Amino acid sequence: MKLSQRVLSMPESSIRKLTPLADEAKKAGIKVYHLNIGQPDLPTPEGFFKGIRGFQEKVLSYSPTPGLPKLREVFSQYYRGQGIELDPDEIVVTNGGSEALHFSFTLLCDPGDEILVPEPLYASYLLLASVASVKLCPVPTRVEDGFHLPAREEFSRRITSRTRAILVSNPGNPTGTVYTREEMETLADLAEEYDLFIIADEVYREFVYDGEHCSFMQLPSARDRVLLVDSISKRFSACGARVGCLSAKDPVVGKELRKIAQSRLSVATVEQAGAIALAETPREYFQEVKAEYRRRRDVAVAGLQSIPGVFCRRPEGAFYILARLPVADAEEFAAWLLRDFSSGGATVMLAPANGFYVTPGRGKDEVRLAYVLKEEDLRRALAILKEGLEAYNNR
Amino acid sequence: MKLSQRVLSMPESSIRKLTPLADEAKKAGIKVYHLNIGQPDLPTPEGFFKGIRGFQEKVLSYSPTPGLPKLREVFSQYYRGQGIELDPDEIVVTNGGSEALHFSFTLLCDPGDEILVPEPLYASYLLLASVASVKLCPVPTRVEDGFHLPAREEFSRRITSRTRAILVSNPGNPTGTVYTREEMETLADLAEEYDLFIIADEVYREFVYDGEHCSFMQLPSARDRVLLVDSISKRFSACGARVGCLSAKDPVVGKELRKIAQSRLSVATVEQAGAIALAETPREYFQEVKAEYRRRRDVAVAGLQSIPGVFCRRPEGAFYILARLPVADAEEFAAWLLRDFSSGGATVMLAPANGFYVTPGRGKDEVRLAYVLKEEDLRRALAILKEGLEAYNNR
Repeated sequence: MKLSQRVLSMPESSIRKLTPLADEAKKAGIKVYHLNIGQPDLPTPEGFFKGIRGFQEKVLSYSPTPGLPKLREVFSQYYRGQGIELDPDEIVVTNGGSEALHFSFTLLCDPGDEILVPEPLYASYLLLASVASVKLCPVPTRVEDGFHLPAREEFSRRITSRTRAILVSNPGNPTGTVYTREEMETLADLAEEYDLFIIADEVYREFVYDGEHCSFMQLPSARDRVLLVDSISKRFSACGARVGCLSAKDPVVGKELRKIAQSRLSVATVEQAGAIALAETPREYFQEVKAEYRRRRDVAVAGLQSIPGVFCRRPEGAFYILARLPVADAEEFAAWLLRDFSSGGATVMLAPANGFYVTPGRGKDEVRLAYVLKEEDLRRALAILKEGLEAYNNR
Repeated sequence: MKLSQRVLSMPESSIRKLTPLADEAKKAGIKVYHLNIGQPDLPTPEGFFKGIRGFQEKVLSYSPTPGLPKLREVFSQYYRGQGIELDPDEIVVTNGGSEALHFSFTLLCDPGDEILVPEPLYASYLLLASVASVKLCPVPTRVEDGFHLPAREEFSRRITSRTRAILVSNPGNPTGTVYTREEMETLADLAEEYDLFIIADEVYREFVYDGEHCSFMQLPSARDRVLLVDSISKRFSACGARVGCLSAKDPVVGKELRKIAQSRLSVATVEQAGAIALAETPREYFQEVKAEYRRRRDVAVAGLQSIPGVFCRRPEGAFYILARLPVADAEEFAAWLLRDFSSGGATVMLAPANGFYVTPGRGKDEVRLAYVLKEEDLRRALAILKEGLEAYNNR
């Protein structure tokens, strides 16, 4: 019995391959510091759970396909506070940012159509593109440049008759990079010249440590060609809610978007009630969270830069660092850390960066670290990494 | 800016086109009986809400991609009670039955591949097939036969080198038809001969009014080529939970399925906690619900058959009846009922059946009725329908 090529050809996640090794290590009594996954450790605001517990309907019915009107209003107001003008009618609630991406790919691309995306890229983009039979065309960026964008020509020379959009994660997963206004204007300009959409994945909007975040929706020249991907997952440490949204200013785009959304009927009703209640979260919450992550970032960067042979620039946002290690094969090293190494009864789990690259061979000596651990644990994890690297290279 | 053909070519739901008319009628003070939508009116078991309120984690984190282990166990045990052997590891929790269908299409088909499906069919199949760029090939069934399956040759002559699966809704939406064991064996036999999968959408399993439901998973000859689509939506009147599952016995299929699921990370964690708590629902719940719907079915069928010119057979399951009306264009009639007719300050909303057909022109004089109203309301709605038909045909 035949399965589809689009699924068979999906890469298996390198993190997933490491999981059994991590499980083995834990079974052997070794503590594993997880630097590999972007699951925030901060508590979800209590409002979310209050919202859920306050749900009083007797029949748990479908919500409207584009989402509960009240939640779309809440998103609209949140955006207004961010300087982004989006009416509730321009917003469709989705099952997390993931579904917003899935909808974007399906809306813009027929099978075989292409989307440009700076590389390294968020690994789920690859899986979602396979599901939609869309081709992601990587535009290389480099650790030496802090993964900032290359010259305009690096994009334009990759545009073909099948190119439909430029996809960017900003602030970036897995890089933590926040694009400058100038970089954004360049992309907006390209999109206009070649009549492309910009799929702007801004789920890390609240995690910008130097300066303010600017949305692609705030660029007057780009606004009408932006699909804005968003989610409450990171913003409110509510990954498990699976509530996000996708927004577009163009009413034709919105209409077609609702047709896609209709195919899956609706997003979980109670989760939306929780997300509505999050509107009460005071602005200080974000300031505190941001301050906490900023400290962690500084600890992580300082820790990494103090390890001989490790290279990274200080990322401006999100909670990731993509670093080059003094090893030939970071996946092998990550496996070795779990299988063959521990220090004081503990080891670390890293995300090998090869999973964030499309171009074969790129990222082999890089890893992604998520600084979602308490400062003290983060320091300990980095010390173990340092020791591990030394031991690995002295085998 | 170009949007994809797969989305632009998606049919707009005929129910959706009627919604503004229903809204207008309501604004004018007319009560609208909704016979058009399969949203059960029965209360969701209290256990679900208890499960949700009992969620105690401080951080609402991603659940494992295939679903919470406990929920997969609950599904496994439920299936055991139904005579279906499925290990928790053979089950992937999904965002409702919709996502289980989406995963099935993507797993089995590359763009342009084909799936055979008895027509009339559940309208979302068409939308989901468009999203996945899969071609649904309809096999006609007829109201005169109670939408039971035609001769084997009607299937086999439509099988091409691109056919990957046979998709059936059993009990059927929009028909209410429950296939006989013999019909099921024929499909199983076809699947074996042509090396096809069977996508068995059995979300209405608990709604079989004459005899017991048999699952495709219970046919030894079919079992290993079945993708079982399921959902708690109808079973527990919990459509808004968006919790379903997709199961396959073949471990290779299961592995690839998990890769697709990985692309959207996970299903809402709290909803899964609610679904787990539903395991406590006593078996009598289903008996009561079934008895209630059986009564309603009998009321609806008797009411319809008493209207001159209306034709339907008594469906064996689900909560739908597809009936032929004495009108040339049921969509026009449905619009007229909302726009130009009322009786005693009330009217009815019907689902025109053309949306359930792929073959152009088929189903034009048919409508789907969902008997999800209280008996008294149902009787009233049918009386209005009778009056409306008379008035319409005497214009």
